[in-house]
Amino acid sequence: MKAEIIAVGTELLLGQIVNTNAQYLSQELAAIGVDVYFQTVVGDNMTRLQEAIRTAQSRADIILFSGGLGPTQDDLTKDAIAAVLGRDLHIDRLSMDKVEGFFRDRGVEMTENNRRQALTIDDATPLKNETGLAVGNALVQEGKYYVILPGPPKELKPMFEQEAKPWLLQHALGGSEMAIYSKMLKFAGIGESALETKLIDLIKEQSDPTIAPYAKEGEVTIRVSTKAASEAEALIKLNAAEVQIQQRLPEYLYASEDVPLEKVIVEWMGRLGLTVGAAESCTGGLVMEMLTSIPGSATIFKGGIVCYSNEIKKKLLNVPHDYLEGENSPGAVSPEVAQVLAEQVRMIMDSDFGLSVTGVAGPGYSELKPVGLVYIGIAERGKKTEVHELRLNGNRETIRIRSAKAILYRLWRRLVENEKE
Amino acid sequence: MKAEIIAVGTELLLGQIVNTNAQYLSQELAAIGVDVYFQTVVGDNMTRLQEAIRTAQSRADIILFSGGLGPTQDDLTKDAIAAVLGRDLHIDRLSMDKVEGFFRDRGVEMTENNRRQALTIDDATPLKNETGLAVGNALVQEGKYYVILPGPPKELKPMFEQEAKPWLLQHALGGSEMAIYSKMLKFAGIGESALETKLIDLIKEQSDPTIAPYAKEGEVTIRVSTKAASEAEALIKLNAAEVQIQQRLPEYLYASEDVPLEKVIVEWMGRLGLTVGAAESCTGGLVMEMLTSIPGSATIFKGGIVCYSNEIKKKLLNVPHDYLEGENSPGAVSPEVAQVLAEQVRMIMDSDFGLSVTGVAGPGYSELKPVGLVYIGIAERGKKTEVHELRLNGNRETIRIRSAKAILYRLWRRLVENEKE
Repeated sequence: MKAEIIAVGTELLLGQIVNTNAQYLSQELAAIGVDVYFQTVVGDNMTRLQEAIRTAQSRADIILFSGGLGPTQDDLTKDAIAAVLGRDLHIDRLSMDKVEGFFRDRGVEMTENNRRQALTIDDATPLKNETGLAVGNALVQEGKYYVILPGPPKELKPMFEQEAKPWLLQHALGGSEMAIYSKMLKFAGIGESALETKLIDLIKEQSDPTIAPYAKEGEVTIRVSTKAASEAEALIKLNAAEVQIQQRLPEYLYASEDVPLEKVIVEWMGRLGLTVGAAESCTGGLVMEMLTSIPGSATIFKGGIVCYSNEIKKKLLNVPHDYLEGENSPGAVSPEVAQVLAEQVRMIMDSDFGLSVTGVAGPGYSELKPVGLVYIGIAERGKKTEVHELRLNGNRETIRIRSAKAILYRLWRRLVENEKE
Repeated sequence: MKAEIIAVGTELLLGQIVNTNAQYLSQELAAIGVDVYFQTVVGDNMTRLQEAIRTAQSRADIILFSGGLGPTQDDLTKDAIAAVLGRDLHIDRLSMDKVEGFFRDRGVEMTENNRRQALTIDDATPLKNETGLAVGNALVQEGKYYVILPGPPKELKPMFEQEAKPWLLQHALGGSEMAIYSKMLKFAGIGESALETKLIDLIKEQSDPTIAPYAKEGEVTIRVSTKAASEAEALIKLNAAEVQIQQRLPEYLYASEDVPLEKVIVEWMGRLGLTVGAAESCTGGLVMEMLTSIPGSATIFKGGIVCYSNEIKKKLLNVPHDYLEGENSPGAVSPEVAQVLAEQVRMIMDSDFGLSVTGVAGPGYSELKPVGLVYIGIAERGKKTEVHELRLNGNRETIRIRSAKAILYRLWRRLVENEKE
């Protein structure tokens, strides 16, 4: 079954609100095995709304509408659908009782336009609105299914869940139990195109489960999806695909659900009772901000120092003066300084791990070192400190995010390696 | 001019991400007088993408595309448009140099699929990508304007602002004498609804210039717009409206252009040669991360300490033990601790200002203090330290962002007050 979602509202076309209804409905439809092929947004305009309905009829079996059910003259959705289908509208008695009761209970006189909220297309099934006044509709005509929902998410979600979904399952999906199941595989320490190259044959040739890379700010994700009659049946296929992918990219797959790397680290260290501190120069606090964004980080993160100036690197982190200044000094952006920062902050925080980042985020640069040159260090109690050189591209923000993700990746690898020992 | 926005990506149709690009582009197009009549979302599928393009051709003069410009086999946008328009594609030399340079600088071998990111439709204008690798395109054919933008918002926004908008103004809107001019007024220290209440008569009744509140993550913005024949003529009207708004909200208007508060602070302190340090508990580094996100922050920001644990508050910031522990102690989330943190970090960093944040970001809480209770402190050399109590609503992320913005607002107010003296 192919579906199209039509959101109605000029406020969407003006960018005053974002279309979260389309996202919600798409997720819900995927979960019951309905493929959404198009999402459309159209304004509160009778001609263009009818045009959008006719376009959807030509390419979808199920058309879901959100918005335009309110009391004002701008709310045209049911009128437009009725016109396209050649049907009339009537007042649904139960819904009208509810609208009238609402005003009576508040001692407010009901204005005439509120009757519009009880309008129902002839021979449609009214969909009850538990959290608002406008009634929804569901109907079938010439093999096409129409589901009409209100715009406010707090009305649309319960109406979809309690009224529209059961109606669709019974009428459009005829009791068929096939649903789409997906698994998100999350990767760190590898770019999107390198990852795709390693999996290109699977992405191109495999049709069940399907394997698709997709980009999300600062992260690389693979979605593995299959249609199945039950979750158990789906999991057999999804897990087999995950094993296959994992074998090709053993060093980079950090989670089989949609979580950020810092969450995996915080939870893992929490289980082992490990702690970490950080000394940040060019990232300016971003590594610590990422770690502490995770609830529960207080048990693993003790604190850290943002040592933006050389003065603070010397004073608080004991970086030797001749590492920072003088003709033959390695300079603040150097493996030597990354090592001292990681080791010193670990000792100061008395933590199991110490992380450091020092680099040139740009746009300015110093010491004849290029923008994007970054050193990251990771110290561990009783072990040798490791330092990595990064050469990153992008603007200041991108370089800072990639540097922070890189040190978190190294920390995660260290946890993996330690567990093997 | 009628426009349609086509967002391309199966992840949108699966509801994995929300279509914020459509919102952004709709706002931007409204601001230059272009009416968006439809927004469409279509998956990474050649047939349906071509179908969506043909539908858009039948009902719009300007078609903007977002997404599907990446290196993978799923990225089909340019191929589909070229096919519909009967054109070929070629590799844009400048863009290819950038892609190759990216991999060379990182010492990583470029995989062949990355060449796709430099693809350009024959006779199209390449749109530079400042923050990524995929080149955009703009072209005219048979009186229709096509603008092709990348999917990641951090690439799409600068490309639209710097490349696509000027192209549209010149080519698609070139004939019109009147242009829309806007001014963005930025506010801090006040919520959106409080701000709207103070300006409701202007927002509702004034038609030239129009005054519209504009939501953006964690910020409050008013856009003042007018149609005029010249910039000089527009500025007279825009400046008069700004003065009127400023008189009603004198304490909150921090800029007349679209810049974050931290940028205003960094530049102001830079001019005066002032410095700042920070001690952060619940914000975990976010205040410092915001300040250091601004180029040039190295001259005003020396460093700071994330004192997530009580142990570090005592050890590095000299918070007295009996402030933190014991039956009658005020506890870590208290005005007393906020004051000590601000004063101590100012002394440690030897800076003009010291900032502090300590609070309960949730979801867990301690000391019988509610989630959202936050104390912020600001110490200044030779002046009395001020401490403010905040009672914030929202989830962990929201509380952290609002706390960070609140201390930056207080620092900005202090700069304003000092200048008056």
